[in-house]
Amino acid sequence: MKIVSIDVHDVRFPTAAAGDGSDAINRGDYSAAYVTLTTDTGLSGSGFTFTNGRGNEIACAAIKALAHHVAGRSLDEIVEEPVAFWRSLTADVQLRWLGPEKGVIHMATGALVNAVWDLRAKAEGKPMWRLLAEMPAEEIVRNIDFRHIVDALTPEEALSLLKDDGGYASRLEVLERDGFPSYTTSVGWLGYPDDQVNALTRQAYDAGWRAMKMKVGGPIEDDVRRAGLIRSVIGDSASKDGSLLMMDANQVWDVPEAIENMKRLKEFDPYWIEEPTHADDVLGHAAIARAVAPIRVATGEVAANRVIFKQLLQADAIGVCQVDACRVGGVNEVLSIVLLAAKFGVPVCPHAGGVGLCEYVQHLSIFDYLRVGRSLEGRMVEYVDHLHEHFVDPVVTRNGRYLPPAAPGYSVTLRPESIADYSFPDGPVWQQD
Amino acid sequence: MKIVSIDVHDVRFPTAAAGDGSDAINRGDYSAAYVTLTTDTGLSGSGFTFTNGRGNEIACAAIKALAHHVAGRSLDEIVEEPVAFWRSLTADVQLRWLGPEKGVIHMATGALVNAVWDLRAKAEGKPMWRLLAEMPAEEIVRNIDFRHIVDALTPEEALSLLKDDGGYASRLEVLERDGFPSYTTSVGWLGYPDDQVNALTRQAYDAGWRAMKMKVGGPIEDDVRRAGLIRSVIGDSASKDGSLLMMDANQVWDVPEAIENMKRLKEFDPYWIEEPTHADDVLGHAAIARAVAPIRVATGEVAANRVIFKQLLQADAIGVCQVDACRVGGVNEVLSIVLLAAKFGVPVCPHAGGVGLCEYVQHLSIFDYLRVGRSLEGRMVEYVDHLHEHFVDPVVTRNGRYLPPAAPGYSVTLRPESIADYSFPDGPVWQQD
Repeated sequence: MKIVSIDVHDVRFPTAAAGDGSDAINRGDYSAAYVTLTTDTGLSGSGFTFTNGRGNEIACAAIKALAHHVAGRSLDEIVEEPVAFWRSLTADVQLRWLGPEKGVIHMATGALVNAVWDLRAKAEGKPMWRLLAEMPAEEIVRNIDFRHIVDALTPEEALSLLKDDGGYASRLEVLERDGFPSYTTSVGWLGYPDDQVNALTRQAYDAGWRAMKMKVGGPIEDDVRRAGLIRSVIGDSASKDGSLLMMDANQVWDVPEAIENMKRLKEFDPYWIEEPTHADDVLGHAAIARAVAPIRVATGEVAANRVIFKQLLQADAIGVCQVDACRVGGVNEVLSIVLLAAKFGVPVCPHAGGVGLCEYVQHLSIFDYLRVGRSLEGRMVEYVDHLHEHFVDPVVTRNGRYLPPAAPGYSVTLRPESIADYSFPDGPVWQQD
Repeated sequence: MKIVSIDVHDVRFPTAAAGDGSDAINRGDYSAAYVTLTTDTGLSGSGFTFTNGRGNEIACAAIKALAHHVAGRSLDEIVEEPVAFWRSLTADVQLRWLGPEKGVIHMATGALVNAVWDLRAKAEGKPMWRLLAEMPAEEIVRNIDFRHIVDALTPEEALSLLKDDGGYASRLEVLERDGFPSYTTSVGWLGYPDDQVNALTRQAYDAGWRAMKMKVGGPIEDDVRRAGLIRSVIGDSASKDGSLLMMDANQVWDVPEAIENMKRLKEFDPYWIEEPTHADDVLGHAAIARAVAPIRVATGEVAANRVIFKQLLQADAIGVCQVDACRVGGVNEVLSIVLLAAKFGVPVCPHAGGVGLCEYVQHLSIFDYLRVGRSLEGRMVEYVDHLHEHFVDPVVTRNGRYLPPAAPGYSVTLRPESIADYSFPDGPVWQQD
């Protein structure tokens, strides 16, 4: 099977106007720099990288700049030499300068690499989580680029983390019976007024969610008031039907400011504080983690690559690893990050929301549970109830849990009519103004 | 004075074919995503970000995506509220997702911010170094965004680092008499055969350079042989007419590999080892620095922003700070990095080479010498003898030293005929194949 053509679409959903997704630092139109690989067999693979609206065209340009490394390749050849393929994208002697392995060029790598994995899973007739979960340990390790992480994780250590413990079947049974735990971020965007927060929290609680995330990083008195409001609906985390409350500052604080503000907010028993400061600040996260313990520090949605995650783990800077499926260089790099987290004993709770991110990361968490982390303790996939209707195989949740996808592939194929309607700037949705 | 229009040019020089600039990880066509700001007075400002060829169009797209924050602004308004202006670029609620503050979107910020500074210097009739060097300390501090660095440098500390010590006039005298020290990287690209390395080293030595940089990161026996060859021409660093030899691995090594390889190379008395591992690996650089001392670790050409430099300094990971003029968000962010380096007692030796980078950074080092670092000890600006002829006001060196530029502005205005000839893909140079 040979990849014969690559189509790139700039697809944007007008979410900014509604205040959906507004936080201390972002307010955008959820968008996908979306790529389709067509093969000579008629089978196709889809992938995308998520952006916040403006600049989605830059991500599309980056995908096009990398596409020549993918076009004309046979799937067999990629499967045979996966790191060589991955490095053809990440170590292009001219394009690498634009990152390296960060920002737009790396996000574009993620879109293309994920599209190849989607194709591979479809070719094998398996959902992505099953393709990975049933893969021999040696083959998983062969898909990882260990360059620049061997001081924290060697191929031998990775193999040993993946070694069969005989518990696979029973974990799969739990998963198929109960689904995978999630938490919801839909209740507390900064753009929502108090009564909307109140209503959405009540609604999520009634639908079964027992873990909710609120945005912080506005004026601290507002954060305190909203935290109290949400706690009054969901109860104490220690009580019988009480819930976890997570907080997310989206990098708006300085390091000392984060420590100060968490002193005010700790009365609401936050389970974690997410992105308390700049995403690149490994040492800053470590200082905050020491100061706010036992509250966990979480980050990852804009952590650029395995080298950043390696350091966050080495420095004891995070208690929760929030890898994103398409910020980093796709499945291959996610595998290294999931294994690094396991090596350091930190649970993975992937970043989701936006458009299509829930579809992506459910597969990663299920794989992690079945083969690497092997526990549901402290594991939750983020859930946001936006834009799922645009996907051919959308996520399905029941009682606040993700049900394992059954259709072959990575679940991120957009419906053709959604691509047409939301294409920017020419789609009909963008012509209405 | 109001900025009325913004023109973006994709300018590429075909250097890849000659092996110029080839190292362990990069081999490209030196390129500029080049921007011209035109004002209602007829005065214009120029800036660019450097890329390695492929992908220059992505950097141009990013400049265009940010341009609406610059177009229509008055220069007075920007000078009045410099951090508000800078944040309009770095904290755009939609575009920030593409970095944040890293990769293509931040490089594009650098191009635009530098173009505004070029305009400002031209409006005041001063070369950039003089504009900065004559600026009151309070105004310099007012140009810095301290967000995410206050745990390492406060505005008060910055003010005190900039306080007048009465030595300005004598430093200026030294500078105008002798010029600013430099080192050359033109001798030891990996793409050059031994006899070319030999000839170029001899030529540089005869022209007055007493500090040379070679690329390493190929097979270690080759690195050892080439180091011996260069040392045989330039003498021991301790001898009377001997020279410093710097080494640059361009990130190709893992952390343990860097430590091993430097054990082999230390017999050649390297003054520093540059980019021994992945640019994002603050903790890795710190581990290498501990292991290879007293050899200094140097990095910076792809360090994305002030938060990365802050950590490199906090972790004692670098002994030389190699900030780039247009990788980070332009002059405003460079000011914060120069002050951070001074706070931690680390000399700044900016990254140059490529196209136009020497033109840029000479101004930064001269300012640093006059107002911040106040010493020439351990300070050198990189020098590469490529492509200067395309600039209206190219660098001038004498006996291996940069002479301070006299023309107003930031020295990065390209000659109109160079823009026309080298425009990609339509310029005549790119039509010859």
